[in-house]
Amino acid sequence: MQKKDSWLLPEGIDEALPAQAKLIEGLRRKLLDTFACWGYDLVIPPFVDFLDSLLTGSGHDLDLQTFKLTDQISGKLLGVRADMTPQVARIDAHNLKHDWPTRLCYFGTVLHTLGDPLEKTRAPMQIGAELYGHTGIESDYEIISLMLETLALSGAEHVHLDLGHVGIYRTLIEAAGLAAEQETELFDVLQRKARSDLDELLRNLPIAEHYKQLFSVLPNLNGGREVLSKALTLLNAAEHPGISQALTDLQNVADHLQRNFPLLPISFDLAELRGYHYHTGMVFAAFIPSIGREIARGGRYDNIGKVFGRARAATGFSADLKVLVNQYKTSVEPQTSQIILAPHSTDTDLIQTVRDLRAGGNTVIQFLPNQSGAAKDLGCTAILEKQDHGWAVKPLA
Amino acid sequence: MQKKDSWLLPEGIDEALPAQAKLIEGLRRKLLDTFACWGYDLVIPPFVDFLDSLLTGSGHDLDLQTFKLTDQISGKLLGVRADMTPQVARIDAHNLKHDWPTRLCYFGTVLHTLGDPLEKTRAPMQIGAELYGHTGIESDYEIISLMLETLALSGAEHVHLDLGHVGIYRTLIEAAGLAAEQETELFDVLQRKARSDLDELLRNLPIAEHYKQLFSVLPNLNGGREVLSKALTLLNAAEHPGISQALTDLQNVADHLQRNFPLLPISFDLAELRGYHYHTGMVFAAFIPSIGREIARGGRYDNIGKVFGRARAATGFSADLKVLVNQYKTSVEPQTSQIILAPHSTDTDLIQTVRDLRAGGNTVIQFLPNQSGAAKDLGCTAILEKQDHGWAVKPLA
Repeated sequence: MQKKDSWLLPEGIDEALPAQAKLIEGLRRKLLDTFACWGYDLVIPPFVDFLDSLLTGSGHDLDLQTFKLTDQISGKLLGVRADMTPQVARIDAHNLKHDWPTRLCYFGTVLHTLGDPLEKTRAPMQIGAELYGHTGIESDYEIISLMLETLALSGAEHVHLDLGHVGIYRTLIEAAGLAAEQETELFDVLQRKARSDLDELLRNLPIAEHYKQLFSVLPNLNGGREVLSKALTLLNAAEHPGISQALTDLQNVADHLQRNFPLLPISFDLAELRGYHYHTGMVFAAFIPSIGREIARGGRYDNIGKVFGRARAATGFSADLKVLVNQYKTSVEPQTSQIILAPHSTDTDLIQTVRDLRAGGNTVIQFLPNQSGAAKDLGCTAILEKQDHGWAVKPLA
Repeated sequence: MQKKDSWLLPEGIDEALPAQAKLIEGLRRKLLDTFACWGYDLVIPPFVDFLDSLLTGSGHDLDLQTFKLTDQISGKLLGVRADMTPQVARIDAHNLKHDWPTRLCYFGTVLHTLGDPLEKTRAPMQIGAELYGHTGIESDYEIISLMLETLALSGAEHVHLDLGHVGIYRTLIEAAGLAAEQETELFDVLQRKARSDLDELLRNLPIAEHYKQLFSVLPNLNGGREVLSKALTLLNAAEHPGISQALTDLQNVADHLQRNFPLLPISFDLAELRGYHYHTGMVFAAFIPSIGREIARGGRYDNIGKVFGRARAATGFSADLKVLVNQYKTSVEPQTSQIILAPHSTDTDLIQTVRDLRAGGNTVIQFLPNQSGAAKDLGCTAILEKQDHGWAVKPLA
């Protein structure tokens, strides 16, 4: 948002002045209305929560990113939400007790203690949608479609989709019998895409040579559609039903997307784990090459609600509305409706005219006695003028 | 909001499930649209801020109500906003550098460490509007009118308006030559409306007997229009221009309100200081007798922007949208538009029909293969059916 004079605000924390706030509000409504048309109900999770609840099922990263507060009433630790997804999952698991699919959407500011080095903000405006209670690829497909629709409505152009599936990595971890601590290290080097670190780590891991080979191949499996067939052989999919199922699911979702979004470039990255410890299946991200980083992301995270009393299949996506607004502002039409100045007067006709104009959705600004600034300073494009038959709107030259 | 199962959330912190969130979103849009029609531009202040900035010009109460955080980046103390008004004043003073009136509005969650004993929430959804750069009663009148319009749009009935003017108290303090510490004590007993404590305090104050008499009379000056003429004599207004001006202003605003809101009951309370240290002039609150407490409040607070580089005249009002929603929900019409279920199919005609229906603002929920729950479980009132000429919406019985 506005950079000038930001010295008064903490680093990565910003305020939106009128022009920017109007864009944010406009896009916010457009997206929430679209989610509603797809059957996604709005929920409003709390801004602070017991720390335990906030961090449930999430990883160490989220813990470090969460601001902590002491609750004077309970004496317990509270956290300021750093991600709304676990809160929404809790709402599904705990409050909406039925077996059929639940579709929820949300919008709100989250806070990060440090922020991502790539992001300039510590206060993203997270907007997202989640689909609970369905395990098939049709729900993955629905969420990816809704994410693409969100980006299209935001005016984002040249969107690329990147697909992955953490089930492949999870299958290999389990088959290789990796312990939790080693797994964390492996996860870390794969996330950093640090090839030499990976080679060194694999040399020292107490697992069969065969699995070292499979983990070593994983980072190379990114690119176009050919990645899926390469993976089938290179990852020895025939011996790992989890891997062959994941590859088939990716294939089917990609086929379906290609039919309905024929111009969308799709790539695959089988080592992409999206940094989220809670994902369990297909993961995806949308990029714009000129920006060079994700502008929306999501994936499947079955069973996160378990700790709140109910394991539920789940998939969803989210984005930072402030990032989307950067796309939106170049595509949005300038406002054409009039802003009308009403002179100061106690004439009851004028008061009624102003009331009627506002009720009709027009903006009418009341001139105040002895104020400084003329109609144009106030941004007005028209003025109310007394005529024989009453008050009339007269455009300014 | 929802009380059931709230054991998972900290006391006074709540989440909004779909039915409640829909009401909140509906009223939020209605009010922000109305503010826009009155020329009030939306701004979005940050959720956290340097503590110094947040507490500027405010009193000790706000400090106690503010959650503190340590900023890992700057090492400074941050506060979670407990009131958005000072933030909005800063935006006017610091970012929008012109002399003519500025009209700003805002909506957002604020957090309180303890909450008011009367309030059940520690996380009000503050909505409000502020008018900067005009000192006359016309701006007080505009803000009071906008507050009344806000309450009317929220479906609030039997609204009463209470008017006061902290200029009266401030004039007496200054004339009596009260020191800051004694003033704090006096302010406190007047706020608590504790008559016996007031009498005792006054006995011990080192001020002229004449002023003890005036302070003693202040709490009695509440009631109908007759309060103003009583005050004129009892407070010795002729000798205190600040008091006579305040009484004249109250009289004029009340007359103007009575003309344009003939059914509005107006009362006066000249000892009402609204608990805000930053107020400087006319203050007001709206009550509904059946609720027994304020549902919206505001007042004049000139010069709060001084510390941000520019002293500006200011008046504004705010309310908790969650309180307004309690009125709104009993007045809002139930939704009548259809919710349509689309069967699972890869038929391109169906995909196009769903796309068109959603683009037209209809809600279409996609049935997913093997899902549990039928159309009615999902809240659907109609279903898409294949007919000879294509897909048609068929209402459910």
